[in-house]
Amino acid sequence: MYYPEPVTKLIDSFMKLPGIGPKTAARLAFYVLTMKEDTVLEFAKALVNVKREITYCSVCGHITEKDPCYICSDPHRDRTTICVVEEPKDVIAMEKMKEYNGLYHVLHGSISPMEGIGPEDIKIPELLKRLQDEKVKELILATDPNIEGEATAMYISRLVKPSGIKVTRIAHGLPVGGDLEYADEVTLSKALEGRREL
Amino acid sequence: MYYPEPVTKLIDSFMKLPGIGPKTAARLAFYVLTMKEDTVLEFAKALVNVKREITYCSVCGHITEKDPCYICSDPHRDRTTICVVEEPKDVIAMEKMKEYNGLYHVLHGSISPMEGIGPEDIKIPELLKRLQDEKVKELILATDPNIEGEATAMYISRLVKPSGIKVTRIAHGLPVGGDLEYADEVTLSKALEGRREL
Repeated sequence: MYYPEPVTKLIDSFMKLPGIGPKTAARLAFYVLTMKEDTVLEFAKALVNVKREITYCSVCGHITEKDPCYICSDPHRDRTTICVVEEPKDVIAMEKMKEYNGLYHVLHGSISPMEGIGPEDIKIPELLKRLQDEKVKELILATDPNIEGEATAMYISRLVKPSGIKVTRIAHGLPVGGDLEYADEVTLSKALEGRREL
Repeated sequence: MYYPEPVTKLIDSFMKLPGIGPKTAARLAFYVLTMKEDTVLEFAKALVNVKREITYCSVCGHITEKDPCYICSDPHRDRTTICVVEEPKDVIAMEKMKEYNGLYHVLHGSISPMEGIGPEDIKIPELLKRLQDEKVKELILATDPNIEGEATAMYISRLVKPSGIKVTRIAHGLPVGGDLEYADEVTLSKALEGRREL
C-alpha cells in the first residue's frame, strides 16, 4: 500500500472519468489534498447536487432543473420548428449561437448497429409522438456529421418525410477559419456538393 | 444561462483542478450526469474523506491516516538514513522502487526566490531539528533535478555538512531506456561528469 486508503479511493473515483488515467488521477488526488476544505466540500456537494437536482425534460429530453425545461416552456419560442440533436451538450452549443429560436429534441445517442443501438434505444419513438401531437412544420436534423449521426438522420428523414413535414439537415462543409489545404477529402467533397450561388 | 445552475457549479469545481479548462470541465460534468448515482456519491465521499482523514506525519511530513506514518513507525526501517524529498508523491515514487529502507523527510516545496519561497517556508527547520535529535548518519538529498531543487539541495548540504553527517545527492544522468541522441546538453554533461569505473 503506497497511498493511504482515502487517497487510493479518490484516485479510483477520478479514474472513472473519461480521459483520466492513473497518473492524472493521482495528480488530481494530490492536488485535492492541498485544496482548502471549503472548496473540496463545495466540489463534493456539486457532484451530489448535479445527480439529485438535474433531470431530463419530459418534452425534449434536455437536462433541466424543472420539467418542462426553460426552452420548452418559453412562450416566445417558435413551436413549429424542432431541431434534433444527439446530446444535451449539443443543445447548449446551439443556444450559445443565439440564432435559433425553435424547440429541440435530444435523442440521447445515435443509431449504431456496431454497438447494438437501434432506433428504439434512443428517443426516436418520443420524437415521432411529438410530431403527431404538435404542429411542427420543419424538422432540422443536427445529429453529428459522422457515420452514426448520418445514419440516424437518414432513418428519421425516411420516417418523417411521408407525413409532409419539411425535413432538413444542417450543412456539411469547411469549418469557418479552417484551411482548404488541410480539409479531408470527404469534407471537401461535401463542401463542393453543397455549394451555393452568390 | 446555458447550463442549469447545478451543472455550472460542478463545471466551476472541476475547473479548479490543475490542467482542466472550461471544455474539459464541461465534458466531465456531463459525464457525471450519465454516471450511476452510487458512483457519484462514492466520488463525493472520497473527496470529503481525503480532506478529513489524511493528515501529515508530524515526524517526516508524509501524508498519512495515523500519526506518525507507517514508515516512521516501522521498526524495521534503517533510522540512520533520511531521504529528503520535495513532495509526498516523491516518497511514493521512492517506495515503489522497493529498494530504499531508510526514513524520509518531506519538505513540501523547494526554495524559490522567484516565488518568494525561502528556507523557512518549507520544512527545513523541522529537518534540522530531526538531525539534532536522531542518530542520522546519511542524508540523501532527492529534491527535483531542476533549479529550485538544486538550490534547495545545495542549501541543506551547506547547513548540514559541518555537523559531520554524510550528505549525498541522487545521481543525474541519462534516464534508463532513454536515447543519448535526444538527451539535452546539461543532462549529458552531468552524465559524463558522474561517470563511474566499471
